[in-house]
Amino acid sequence: MPLTDQPETKFSFHVLSQDPNTRARCGKITTAHGEILTPVFMPVGTQGTVKTLSPQELEDVGSQIILGNTYHLYLRPGEALLQQAGGLHKFANWRKPILTDSGGFQVFSLAELRKIHENGVKFQSHIDGSYHEFTPESVVRTQRCLGSDIMMVLDECPPYPSERSYVEKSTQLTSRWAERCFQAWQNSPPLYGHSQALFAIVQGSIFIDQRRLSCEQLLTFDFPGYALGGLAVGEPKSAMGEMIEVCNELLPENKPRYLMGVGKPEDLVEAVSRGVDMFDCVIPTRNGRKGQVFTANGPINLTNLIFREDFRPIAEDCDCYACRTFTRAYLRHLFHAEEILALRLGSLHNLRFYHKLMESMRSAIAAGGFLQWQKSFYATYQIKPTAAETASID
Amino acid sequence: MPLTDQPETKFSFHVLSQDPNTRARCGKITTAHGEILTPVFMPVGTQGTVKTLSPQELEDVGSQIILGNTYHLYLRPGEALLQQAGGLHKFANWRKPILTDSGGFQVFSLAELRKIHENGVKFQSHIDGSYHEFTPESVVRTQRCLGSDIMMVLDECPPYPSERSYVEKSTQLTSRWAERCFQAWQNSPPLYGHSQALFAIVQGSIFIDQRRLSCEQLLTFDFPGYALGGLAVGEPKSAMGEMIEVCNELLPENKPRYLMGVGKPEDLVEAVSRGVDMFDCVIPTRNGRKGQVFTANGPINLTNLIFREDFRPIAEDCDCYACRTFTRAYLRHLFHAEEILALRLGSLHNLRFYHKLMESMRSAIAAGGFLQWQKSFYATYQIKPTAAETASID
Repeated sequence: MPLTDQPETKFSFHVLSQDPNTRARCGKITTAHGEILTPVFMPVGTQGTVKTLSPQELEDVGSQIILGNTYHLYLRPGEALLQQAGGLHKFANWRKPILTDSGGFQVFSLAELRKIHENGVKFQSHIDGSYHEFTPESVVRTQRCLGSDIMMVLDECPPYPSERSYVEKSTQLTSRWAERCFQAWQNSPPLYGHSQALFAIVQGSIFIDQRRLSCEQLLTFDFPGYALGGLAVGEPKSAMGEMIEVCNELLPENKPRYLMGVGKPEDLVEAVSRGVDMFDCVIPTRNGRKGQVFTANGPINLTNLIFREDFRPIAEDCDCYACRTFTRAYLRHLFHAEEILALRLGSLHNLRFYHKLMESMRSAIAAGGFLQWQKSFYATYQIKPTAAETASID
Repeated sequence: MPLTDQPETKFSFHVLSQDPNTRARCGKITTAHGEILTPVFMPVGTQGTVKTLSPQELEDVGSQIILGNTYHLYLRPGEALLQQAGGLHKFANWRKPILTDSGGFQVFSLAELRKIHENGVKFQSHIDGSYHEFTPESVVRTQRCLGSDIMMVLDECPPYPSERSYVEKSTQLTSRWAERCFQAWQNSPPLYGHSQALFAIVQGSIFIDQRRLSCEQLLTFDFPGYALGGLAVGEPKSAMGEMIEVCNELLPENKPRYLMGVGKPEDLVEAVSRGVDMFDCVIPTRNGRKGQVFTANGPINLTNLIFREDFRPIAEDCDCYACRTFTRAYLRHLFHAEEILALRLGSLHNLRFYHKLMESMRSAIAAGGFLQWQKSFYATYQIKPTAAETASID
């Protein structure tokens, strides 16, 4: 499997079509490792692998780009080994684009004894308790070692809920760190010959003025893309929708917009209608490993008793290996027997479902009929847990 | 993936070539689900799946037949569901041959409070403590529900070491159970239209006269094949070799010989030279899940520090997906990060190694040069732990 670096290719984004009735749009991101059609869902490959799946399987289900977590990869296997390997693409043998986060979010959610300073954040490894520090400059350096096509700035993600006074200070810190990341990016060469873009991250919790201020401050630098951070952290869905709208009014049309850590299928639909282009989330893989799989009618849980003698595939309309090969009854058996093949097949199917959902939205937008598509999606898709979800497990 | 049942095909075995200097031989087993070239290694699919792998991957690495464990499948998902599914082939979507054991061995090794009677063995499930009984007739019935191409008789496997007096009684019981299994087999129709063979199991621990007596008694019935049971349970390697020789002098040339639960690569080589045709063992998959992988130079453990910066594949001469795609350094990272992909790739590579080892032996036998092949195998393959095996883990 040859890697397809095209070092001469610079990062770019073009809007291909704009839905007439919503803010939904189709676009194309170009990177040194190939093109990405948006709206796009990015599977999460925390430790240099999307859990349970091979690169071949990811390509087979239609993954265009995967995400790597800088915090995890910095700690293990570490910058030195990644650099020796020639970057994350070669190390993991993934030839398509990679986006890496800055590591900041994981420091706040996983690391012990984290302490935020003006200069950065000090923390102890969740693996061995060793001491480390991330700074705006260090996370750019680490992401240079990773060689991701899209790097992210270091930001502070305030927990929800947070006091206004805390958010005001935090948003300013995120802006100052973004500027330092921008400079570090401008002043450091890529290590493997191909260009790497850097995205800024808008913060501001659920305060409209803080979100606007964050956008305005980040827009003083010409970042190749803008992410919305600090959402899907416990706030009401309506607040998330409002923040997306507030930000997308200010963010430029000609830059990709990335909603970090989102979400469920219905969250993606809502965000796409508000003009978001990129998503990442562990839901399809994490839930798939627990037996929750997605269908056009909503999620079902394969461990439930009602599937014991169900010799249909997960979804009749799905072309994934799990659906082409196995019945719900067999998959239920595998989950109850705690067989690893179950975890693989749940993950594989769910990623295929997510990618097909995005494909379906791209087609609807290109045809100018996103509103109609959205209506028909909700007519079929049961957001609330179905009987299959709530049935007692035997 | 259509199933390829050929219901009209009866079980048969033909010796294709006999090595002139050893007892090694090549053969062909024909079943309703296809042909099997021997000597053959059968991956173990305990719960209706070879751990971590898909049926497609098993075919890709060259698996000709897999094994299912009757004890596990009887308890979960149970006879009724397997029958509803149309048997194990359809349930697991495995279109090639399947061999099932009788469940006896697992009752002795896994179940609680087992009690052997003349009629059979009573035991409690290791899953939920429920009470069950296996009899010669019941295990044939269960294997009819499974629809395996090769069924095994219920036997008692004496632990090692056992007193002569115990082994004498046990061998007689195994013979009486074999006769009852033979009758149950003759008197029950297959459930899914394809014919199912039944193999007898020779016991007798490491007592030459008991092994001979067991062979003679079982030979009074025209079983389609004969297995050697109760070996590789702790006895010295020399005793295992001797028992194989003693039995294979008595067992007919025109019936396949199956050494149950064996073993390491060198054990397979030794047994093939003594005329064994079939093997099953969890070593390639279980050890692969722990990072021990096999190469022409012997086993190595990928978790070891010496592989940290080793950007070579597991084996340069291997054509498996793991070796074509990933480096030892990446695999070591996956094992340390406890990623499921590591368990898959270790299993996949090891099964490919085992199947290629058998292929290589078949070629050598067909060419009449097994002794020479054996010599060159031992010249390269390090049986004792290598530096890579014993190096301290970081």
